[in-house]
Amino acid sequence: MKKICAAAAAGLVTSVACAQSSLTMFGVVDAAVTYTTGSGPASTSRWQLTNSANSFSRLGFRGNEDLGGGLSAGFWLEEGLMNDTGTGFPSNTNNQLNGTAGLGTQTFNRRSTVSLTSSTLGELRLGRDYTPTFWNTALFDPFGTGSGIGANQLYFSGLGGLQAPTGTRASNSIGYFLPANLGGFYGSVMYAMGENISNSTLPATPGALPVPNKNDGRYGGIRLGYQSGPFHVSIATGLTTYATGDLRVSNLGASWTFEQLMGLRVMGEYYVESLGAVDGKGALLGFILPVGPGEIKASYARYVRQPVGNVPDPTTSKLALGYVYNFSKRTAVYATVARLTNSNGASQALTGVTTSPNHASTGGETGVRVAF
Amino acid sequence: MKKICAAAAAGLVTSVACAQSSLTMFGVVDAAVTYTTGSGPASTSRWQLTNSANSFSRLGFRGNEDLGGGLSAGFWLEEGLMNDTGTGFPSNTNNQLNGTAGLGTQTFNRRSTVSLTSSTLGELRLGRDYTPTFWNTALFDPFGTGSGIGANQLYFSGLGGLQAPTGTRASNSIGYFLPANLGGFYGSVMYAMGENISNSTLPATPGALPVPNKNDGRYGGIRLGYQSGPFHVSIATGLTTYATGDLRVSNLGASWTFEQLMGLRVMGEYYVESLGAVDGKGALLGFILPVGPGEIKASYARYVRQPVGNVPDPTTSKLALGYVYNFSKRTAVYATVARLTNSNGASQALTGVTTSPNHASTGGETGVRVAF
Amino acid sequence: MKKICAAAAAGLVTSVACAQSSLTMFGVVDAAVTYTTGSGPASTSRWQLTNSANSFSRLGFRGNEDLGGGLSAGFWLEEGLMNDTGTGFPSNTNNQLNGTAGLGTQTFNRRSTVSLTSSTLGELRLGRDYTPTFWNTALFDPFGTGSGIGANQLYFSGLGGLQAPTGTRASNSIGYFLPANLGGFYGSVMYAMGENISNSTLPATPGALPVPNKNDGRYGGIRLGYQSGPFHVSIATGLTTYATGDLRVSNLGASWTFEQLMGLRVMGEYYVESLGAVDGKGALLGFILPVGPGEIKASYARYVRQPVGNVPDPTTSKLALGYVYNFSKRTAVYATVARLTNSNGASQALTGVTTSPNHASTGGETGVRVAF
Repeated sequence: MKKICAAAAAGLVTSVACAQSSLTMFGVVDAAVTYTTGSGPASTSRWQLTNSANSFSRLGFRGNEDLGGGLSAGFWLEEGLMNDTGTGFPSNTNNQLNGTAGLGTQTFNRRSTVSLTSSTLGELRLGRDYTPTFWNTALFDPFGTGSGIGANQLYFSGLGGLQAPTGTRASNSIGYFLPANLGGFYGSVMYAMGENISNSTLPATPGALPVPNKNDGRYGGIRLGYQSGPFHVSIATGLTTYATGDLRVSNLGASWTFEQLMGLRVMGEYYVESLGAVDGKGALLGFILPVGPGEIKASYARYVRQPVGNVPDPTTSKLALGYVYNFSKRTAVYATVARLTNSNGASQALTGVTTSPNHASTGGETGVRVAF
Repeated sequence: MKKICAAAAAGLVTSVACAQSSLTMFGVVDAAVTYTTGSGPASTSRWQLTNSANSFSRLGFRGNEDLGGGLSAGFWLEEGLMNDTGTGFPSNTNNQLNGTAGLGTQTFNRRSTVSLTSSTLGELRLGRDYTPTFWNTALFDPFGTGSGIGANQLYFSGLGGLQAPTGTRASNSIGYFLPANLGGFYGSVMYAMGENISNSTLPATPGALPVPNKNDGRYGGIRLGYQSGPFHVSIATGLTTYATGDLRVSNLGASWTFEQLMGLRVMGEYYVESLGAVDGKGALLGFILPVGPGEIKASYARYVRQPVGNVPDPTTSKLALGYVYNFSKRTAVYATVARLTNSNGASQALTGVTTSPNHASTGGETGVRVAF
Repeated sequence: MKKICAAAAAGLVTSVACAQSSLTMFGVVDAAVTYTTGSGPASTSRWQLTNSANSFSRLGFRGNEDLGGGLSAGFWLEEGLMNDTGTGFPSNTNNQLNGTAGLGTQTFNRRSTVSLTSSTLGELRLGRDYTPTFWNTALFDPFGTGSGIGANQLYFSGLGGLQAPTGTRASNSIGYFLPANLGGFYGSVMYAMGENISNSTLPATPGALPVPNKNDGRYGGIRLGYQSGPFHVSIATGLTTYATGDLRVSNLGASWTFEQLMGLRVMGEYYVESLGAVDGKGALLGFILPVGPGEIKASYARYVRQPVGNVPDPTTSKLALGYVYNFSKRTAVYATVARLTNSNGASQALTGVTTSPNHASTGGETGVRVAF
């Protein structure tokens, strides 16, 4: 990360100018060698060079201007990087499946916002941004939500709570954030538009009446949290409207840092989601233990999908163990192993491979991450 | 905008180095909440988060090197941003409709040039750049040519004078600009290539001979202007060659700033265009009135399309009124209302909606713009 | 190129911080007017504004962090620019023909890597990078490998040694580079993955068994060189695995700089390649002669394709002559002429046109290049 101070007319870079306004270029480049395999007759295995196993690779530009009187303005443009191949990520223009744009290339898919912030009234933020219902899944998982094998992919692979167009971020959003300095309390609400025209309908099915979907892709969500000393808790809920069945996501995350136990941070998340008539729920428990310049991370997660009807619920469990060695605040090497187990017909597998129903999937990876 | 001075070998950033060469990162992020609606039986309405309603969102990198003796070299790379969704704009590779490239993603669609400039001889500029015939429509409209509802979209929606591949910019261009300091006179010419091979033909129509189109996408244009004190006038004309019918665009813009009337700037543009055998013409009158830290803007525009044959000419009029509050030179909030009216069968509407023939379309928007 | 030193907390840019870590933005913008023509009944000609005729146009971001003890970490993100149209280049996700991604847009196709470097052990580099077999073709051609008409396009247009997905760069690569300061010796090895799943097969041909292609897109290569005083020599070889026929590329390049002859640098390359059962080989001889602030460049190259069977080998020769005038280290204007001749049925032509078998193709170009 480089904070580039504002250049005065003479071209001098000074700290005085920097206090008034700033432009920052920042990013992460993270690559790993990954091996994953399924088991059972229909399984596959794969070697890959992957990106973002420790932290999501990105390149961003952001800035801030102090307008005086506690008011400031800012912008944030951040694109995801698939640095194993030099490509980028698509974005989504309407929060609906048909809105994918920019496949295989760079877009500011991670964040693209303009803000007005008052120190007493809070922040108004417009553009493409994280949804309130995303954050708890990221902050209370020891492996974050990187695309590495350690992160809780059960949730990703479930009903789509994180894979839906509004699972992580929403386009066309209006967000409000409570001001800082509320004694540890924080919160935000977001409303995002699907931008369909007033008489929009789904593609017609033969013999059926057109189904209006004017509100498809409309997201509304809220998040409230409290962080003080060793304790952090946060709750969030959100609803995305779809004519084919609404998506509801709610989650609760909490963590406690035991300073007397070498700084051990224990954390957990509970989440429920539903897509139309199908429900899913899951939970995660994990910890991060600092050890010298590195840290040991572990998590156990379980996901249960509850279909309509009297059949056993497909269930998947995941165990992940990792070690990160920090050369500096910005540079680290790491290694992770993970194992998924399935029952009641579930067949989730680690990234890039397939496993037979009720069979396990295992994998390992090691990589380098540089932040700037 | 940040001017990053050249770093000396020791890594020191100094104003001396900056005088020799510079690298500047710059941009705009502008987002607005917009509601537009048509009227009549076939009309629609829509809520959107839009971008660029006050100024076009962009991210750019440009630089300049002083070569001594009044000579300098420069480059300019500027991409458009759809920051409501994190995506970008396509460019066009051959100035023809089939040359669209990079849909839904970032390209340096706004400008991508390399220049040699002499203080006495002028500037030679190669690459993708604005066409001479674009500028008068931007400079003499109080709302510029942003994609907001205030700008004169009649022209955009007409025969395609601004929507054609060469309407705003051309790829493969060679441009020449008169030197500065000509006592207020300025001017430029551009020649851009379609780059078709020597025996190129249009896709064959059954039973017809192939039509050669070696010159399709070739643009030639010129612009001359004079600006001194309160007065500014500019005239431009251009021709794009197409085997299906050439596109001719000409326009004349002028403005006067009355310093004694609070700095009121009154402006107008007259433009004519033709695509093959169909003609169109229009005019705009408007003003910008500074009021404290803000400004009031208004415009009235009219566009008449003249088809072949004895039918009344479809005509559209537009009235727009806006207010911009400037927190600083870079940060502003704004609001605009606009109303389009149609007659003689015309059915133009504001962005994103449709209106019935001879019916009106109205809309309003409010947003935030940050420049850097 | 701008080296942006790390900003201390107070926002001050100092040379001390710069020694610890750096972030550099860099690039090239190069545009030329190019005319090429073939000859014979099936030939075409074309005028174009082209990019990268002297040096490949690009925009890049790279950084380095000193981790102490001779260890450092770095990243490098570099995208190619088609600045004549504002577009970019695609990348490739799996080193196979079906892996093209990002067509018509910007990707970090040129390089996208993260590195750990030890001053005594060498560098480990992960991501998309140049293949070892690419470099000799670039370094020992007076015209480099720019897309201008001067560079040795015979090799490019042959069996695909440079046009294959791994011809210039490979995605998903793990590279190792010997440390510097080995008395002039240097070297590198690369292993890149195709990332196919374990039971991957080619698209089935009717009536035939599926052909496994688990290893398609896997590249392995090595390069060793020695540079000391006026002498430079380098040898490289590489193998890309494809179920339809492996691609093997080997080359040897050398150059000698005669300081007593005005700094004349004479160079040559010999290369062999094979794709399945078809072989090709070629050679190039050339020189660069500094003349005042400019330089004269010339090359003669010959390429022979050796098909299976008793037919004469299609053969193409190329003569190129150029002049570059350097305004500064970063800014230059240049002009190049080139002529291709074909025999034994060969029909290679200069960029953008076609020529009849056994007929010549000629062209000329002149342009401007700015580096930053």
